[in-house]
Amino acid sequence: MRNKPWAIDYLKTNAHIVDVENTYAKKIKEFFITEQPLHIEVGTGMGTFVTTLAQQNPDINYVGIEIDKNVIINVVEKVIELGLTNVRLLLLDANTLMDYFNENEVDKGYLNFSDPWPKTRHQKRRLTHSRFLSSYKQLLKPDSIVEFKTDNRGLFEFSLMSMNEYGMTFEGLNLDVHDDEPEDNIRTEYEEKFSQRGHKIYWIQASFS
Amino acid sequence: MRNKPWAIDYLKTNAHIVDVENTYAKKIKEFFITEQPLHIEVGTGMGTFVTTLAQQNPDINYVGIEIDKNVIINVVEKVIELGLTNVRLLLLDANTLMDYFNENEVDKGYLNFSDPWPKTRHQKRRLTHSRFLSSYKQLLKPDSIVEFKTDNRGLFEFSLMSMNEYGMTFEGLNLDVHDDEPEDNIRTEYEEKFSQRGHKIYWIQASFS
Repeated sequence: MRNKPWAIDYLKTNAHIVDVENTYAKKIKEFFITEQPLHIEVGTGMGTFVTTLAQQNPDINYVGIEIDKNVIINVVEKVIELGLTNVRLLLLDANTLMDYFNENEVDKGYLNFSDPWPKTRHQKRRLTHSRFLSSYKQLLKPDSIVEFKTDNRGLFEFSLMSMNEYGMTFEGLNLDVHDDEPEDNIRTEYEEKFSQRGHKIYWIQASFS
Repeated sequence: MRNKPWAIDYLKTNAHIVDVENTYAKKIKEFFITEQPLHIEVGTGMGTFVTTLAQQNPDINYVGIEIDKNVIINVVEKVIELGLTNVRLLLLDANTLMDYFNENEVDKGYLNFSDPWPKTRHQKRRLTHSRFLSSYKQLLKPDSIVEFKTDNRGLFEFSLMSMNEYGMTFEGLNLDVHDDEPEDNIRTEYEEKFSQRGHKIYWIQASFS
């Protein structure tokens, strides 16, 4: 993704859609018009997933979190274009999730095609490392679900091990999502591209109960 | 596998290798010449796996368990041909494992390409159903490992869910064993055949600790 020097200015102009300066930290509900269940996606990428979900479920509020300013501007554009009022975005490092959210205020979490960080010495950066699972557990309500989808075998193997080790309960599992694809699967741009190259798409749904 | 009316007679002739009549129930150690660690395979099929392991590890005793008399004669033949003294076989239904073994007497368990029983109404027959995990936990020593390999995606998904639900700890995981194949992987006849047809080979190592 090419660096866009104007990205921060553009994002600040759209402060009603994207929070760049932690304005809504500890009061995320005030970012939305309607109070309704809150789902988050950690790492939106280009935002196809969260904006499609938001269109399909107007009775749910979605928070899309993305660390890269050059990437999140694409999501802002989608939200504007679709006129979505139930998606708000955070330019935020997932390491600071618990500085932003209150405990037990989120109803569901999504991770899609997260950075695999293939080197072992970087495994603490993987979004399914116990460091992050611990954050998700805190900000999610008890019994809430985390859904995770990836085409990266190494990351998925790591994630199954990590979630199991953490004591999470597997609620659903699919080792080849595009074989007999579930009707409600939302294909991201990335998913489409790498599926065409023959990658299997892996999916898990797990809870902290 | 064609029915061989002479199978039971053949097996009884080789009672020093295969136990057809539960002769060594609750005293499996007496079936072996040397007392050394005991590993079991539940469902030997044609026996390539257990006999290869036994050749590689003369300091471990192996018990191969198989329910089908027409299948187990092939394993008996292999044991004779290879002159193995550290493999003994049981013609036994896995449902009766705990009638045969004492608690905490086995050091490791293997399951390879178990019958997938794809219909949901048959899931209790899958060898990774909690019914069987409960037996393995009893007959294995604490902290022992169970290794399971299959090319059947549905069975593997079920097994990950079942082991996780049962509270087992995943110690190792591989969703494509033949990609960068571990040196110690033993390919069974079945594995060779279905891998050539493009099936992925899945593997998990888990413990009850």
